[in-house]
Amino acid sequence: MAAEGSRISILCFFTTLLCFSLQTSEAKVRHYKWEVKYEFKSPDCYRKLVITINGGTPGPTIIAQQNDTVVVDVKNSLGTENLAIHWHGIRQIGSPWADGTEGVTQCPVLPGDTFRYKFVVDRPGTYLYHAHYGMQRESGLYGSIRVSVPTGESEPFAYDYDRSIILNDWYHKTPYEQAAGLSAKPFVWVGEPQSLLIHGKGRFNCSTPGLGLEPATCNNTNPECSPYTMTVVPGKTYRLRIGSLTALSALSFQIDGHNMTVVEADGHYVDPFVVQTLYIYSGETYSVLIRTDQNPTRNYWIATNVVGRNRTTPPGIGVLNYYPNHPKRSPPPINLPSAPIWDDRRPRVEQSRAIRARPGHVHDPPRSSDRVIVTLNTQNEIDGFRRWSVNNVSFNLPHTPYLIGLKHKLLHTFSQIPPPEDYDRARFDVTSRARNSNPNATVGDGVYRLKFGSTVDLILQNGNTMVPNNSETHPWHLHGHDFWVLGYGEGEFDPKRDPKGYNLVDPIMKNTVPVHPYGWTALRFKADNPGVWMFHCHIESHFYMGMGVVFEEGIEMVGDLPAAIGGCGETKGLKLHGKP
Amino acid sequence: MAAEGSRISILCFFTTLLCFSLQTSEAKVRHYKWEVKYEFKSPDCYRKLVITINGGTPGPTIIAQQNDTVVVDVKNSLGTENLAIHWHGIRQIGSPWADGTEGVTQCPVLPGDTFRYKFVVDRPGTYLYHAHYGMQRESGLYGSIRVSVPTGESEPFAYDYDRSIILNDWYHKTPYEQAAGLSAKPFVWVGEPQSLLIHGKGRFNCSTPGLGLEPATCNNTNPECSPYTMTVVPGKTYRLRIGSLTALSALSFQIDGHNMTVVEADGHYVDPFVVQTLYIYSGETYSVLIRTDQNPTRNYWIATNVVGRNRTTPPGIGVLNYYPNHPKRSPPPINLPSAPIWDDRRPRVEQSRAIRARPGHVHDPPRSSDRVIVTLNTQNEIDGFRRWSVNNVSFNLPHTPYLIGLKHKLLHTFSQIPPPEDYDRARFDVTSRARNSNPNATVGDGVYRLKFGSTVDLILQNGNTMVPNNSETHPWHLHGHDFWVLGYGEGEFDPKRDPKGYNLVDPIMKNTVPVHPYGWTALRFKADNPGVWMFHCHIESHFYMGMGVVFEEGIEMVGDLPAAIGGCGETKGLKLHGKP
Repeated sequence: MAAEGSRISILCFFTTLLCFSLQTSEAKVRHYKWEVKYEFKSPDCYRKLVITINGGTPGPTIIAQQNDTVVVDVKNSLGTENLAIHWHGIRQIGSPWADGTEGVTQCPVLPGDTFRYKFVVDRPGTYLYHAHYGMQRESGLYGSIRVSVPTGESEPFAYDYDRSIILNDWYHKTPYEQAAGLSAKPFVWVGEPQSLLIHGKGRFNCSTPGLGLEPATCNNTNPECSPYTMTVVPGKTYRLRIGSLTALSALSFQIDGHNMTVVEADGHYVDPFVVQTLYIYSGETYSVLIRTDQNPTRNYWIATNVVGRNRTTPPGIGVLNYYPNHPKRSPPPINLPSAPIWDDRRPRVEQSRAIRARPGHVHDPPRSSDRVIVTLNTQNEIDGFRRWSVNNVSFNLPHTPYLIGLKHKLLHTFSQIPPPEDYDRARFDVTSRARNSNPNATVGDGVYRLKFGSTVDLILQNGNTMVPNNSETHPWHLHGHDFWVLGYGEGEFDPKRDPKGYNLVDPIMKNTVPVHPYGWTALRFKADNPGVWMFHCHIESHFYMGMGVVFEEGIEMVGDLPAAIGGCGETKGLKLHGKP
Repeated sequence: MAAEGSRISILCFFTTLLCFSLQTSEAKVRHYKWEVKYEFKSPDCYRKLVITINGGTPGPTIIAQQNDTVVVDVKNSLGTENLAIHWHGIRQIGSPWADGTEGVTQCPVLPGDTFRYKFVVDRPGTYLYHAHYGMQRESGLYGSIRVSVPTGESEPFAYDYDRSIILNDWYHKTPYEQAAGLSAKPFVWVGEPQSLLIHGKGRFNCSTPGLGLEPATCNNTNPECSPYTMTVVPGKTYRLRIGSLTALSALSFQIDGHNMTVVEADGHYVDPFVVQTLYIYSGETYSVLIRTDQNPTRNYWIATNVVGRNRTTPPGIGVLNYYPNHPKRSPPPINLPSAPIWDDRRPRVEQSRAIRARPGHVHDPPRSSDRVIVTLNTQNEIDGFRRWSVNNVSFNLPHTPYLIGLKHKLLHTFSQIPPPEDYDRARFDVTSRARNSNPNATVGDGVYRLKFGSTVDLILQNGNTMVPNNSETHPWHLHGHDFWVLGYGEGEFDPKRDPKGYNLVDPIMKNTVPVHPYGWTALRFKADNPGVWMFHCHIESHFYMGMGVVFEEGIEMVGDLPAAIGGCGETKGLKLHGKP
């Protein structure tokens, strides 16, 4: 029966591939040529070295239609630093080597080399791309992907204009400086960001007392850091595609005087609901519709704030400019939306629960799962180093990428001990508000090997950090798949009781989802995409400190790997035959 | 006759290898394990991220005896940055893949990987090691190599104690920031260094007006930047092995009240001469003898200053501590040696001319050469980018290292057009003091292919830069060889007249030599070391901007290349069979 299931799964996979090829017969190839390098920029008025793509950060927005093939030739001109770019939300069906996850799906791209990423965008929606190598994303290497429905088809909602906005938090220290602190004994935390950026523009106060910043270093009149301004015409409907690629911060997003109707999340249509404040976590995307139906004789504030942390970062501020008002005309100061209470997680949990699939666009989840993996995230100290762990194992990337190691059976390149399926309930009381002081975590690079075609439940379990009475929000991102979001809960997940409350009727599918403080989140996915896939906290420093796991499924079905993904660890001298 | 000469050369080569193996029968293996990472340090009181080896900068001094095998296992823990380490002055006979020149002899070492450098130190003397990748050396990745004569043998001079000192200049900007400026349009020059370091210790004035530095960033009482102190006992002779690894600066070195007798240069014995001021250029090493015969009741200043540039950098200061005076007891301020006049090059040229081989230790140079390559260095602009060129070609490294490209006949990986043997005398008047405004330089990566065993003369020709009435000192370093220094001259080298004045009697052999402003330097070397070898200006930014050339000789005699040097460019998937 199991063997038959497996055969059926393989059949389904190839049938899907076939249908897919048929569907793409009219699809286009979208070819981009990017040069990635370091340049001095002042995104928030403070001049620092950032990583640009073709001279900008954020990089160019990739615009394509469903089933198009996107080809991006990335030239690394970073001098002495490697890179890898992940196409966040793109499942890479049939192209697992193009996922851009350094250490998992490829060796990094060396300076001087040009790497070809080639993949099909098989679903319409709002996606992101960003560096997936150390904490390189924080240097500014990121952008948007906008996939529209094929010509002749239409979305299940109407709008006149389409705009992309990426939210980000911004640090003045380099990822090198931050990493040195995170890896030091004693540990030095990265701290709160200096500013919030709305599509690459923010504002740091150059007159901050005690800093003595020269105008050459920080200049609030620099046009590079003029506020983000979106010009709109009155009486229209705008689709705003909002993504977050913060290094750390959970954010609120508000537009003075304008309601937002949430219609899409991570590439899936949402049963529409209206908010004044949108909460968004790193790695998430939302489409909201706004109607420019307010008093057209003035402009309106756009504001984003840190939530979930006791913020020291000022709001990120932009302007919704009603044409023909002058774009530099400030809205009334009194109308600046006030920030949500930072530690009131109720509205954030409510939003999480409100996101359900749009009627008529529900992907039915399997009724049950073949395997349940409970992942408790904890803060730990290992040999005096501060780490994050999952079920008491803190993740380290091996030096040979898993995709190559598994496909070519270099099984000595990583631990063959699978990570735990659950946490030790005798040792961890996730309902405790006391400091988690477990010192016995270990470092590991083992992999969860999933039966191809099986259904897997992931239960994200949160608890207290190493600070008493503190639990953090973690946005978890799954590569290569969308998952169904079956439910959220408070306290300890009960494997007997809680699954009975799962939403199997209209769960949204997403690729990134928060686990709220002291809570749990239940996800389900089909292990039906041959490859090796990361699942990790999207907070840059948390991932750096070990907060992630790896799944393998159907490795034997993966095609020939392209030579370009090799070159590191034990892949030197390994002949790879595939094409990107 | 030529064929016979070639056969004899090959015979000599293998005989040498054989003798060499016999000689090394008693030699030891010196095994080092290094971890290279970023850490915060305050070498000159200003706290910044530096690259350390096993926690320090400079790194450990390698101490070995002639004919020992040195094995250094280098683990790259730099996160997202590669590395390569060059063993400066070690000829790498039989191990050209261990020269550590990124892009020439190896691909860079990736983060997470451990690379084994294994080579024989076949001559006693004072050598250096340092990063040879982009401008990474400036981050602090460098150290000394001290090779003593075999047990039972003695040097041709006597001394009681042996000490190593590396001089360096120090910038507060990172190499990434500097490189971004050098590569920008318009060009941003790196400027003068913030301080000079004596063996990793310097002093930046933390109260410099206008900087408003917090004590956490800059603290003049930090013990990390206490002055370099060398404790000596009175009445003894000390051998000081002084090396310079400055990014930019030519330096003077003085010890208050103590003459220095120069006895070694770049691993060769010098006919001794006495100086009060030693001039030293980046990449050079000298051994000097000092006698601690001064008033033993006080300490003495050690001072180093920038020469050849209109310095803004304060002197680097250390203390020669006569035991039992307290090491922190300052010498009298009035005794601080005054800096030489920066633009008086007469004493520097005199020192260059004074360096001759010690009688009884002269290596006779060939009486004539088979080929003469004249290399004029010029500043240029190419497409609006500021560059340095050699005979009007500005050097760029290819993406596939030459050693692999040549050995495996991947001849499409670099230009097959050989660089020019001479400069265009009709176009360049090297005696002119006018701005060099030649806009027609090109970028290239062609190679000088040398007949194995042939004798090659290199004539370094200097001229005016792009600033009127300005010519700079460039220290040129040859990998894989020592060269004979046949002569120095003013103005334009005359190929008919000047060779008649060559010193063929007792020329010193060196690996690094300056070409003085508006002058020329004549070198001769035997192309008898199978491999591919860089010859370049040792100023970090000049090399970055194209001031170098590459020589190939006897590539067909190079043994199997180790797999570890591959992984970049077209070496991906190339099976390399050798061992380090």
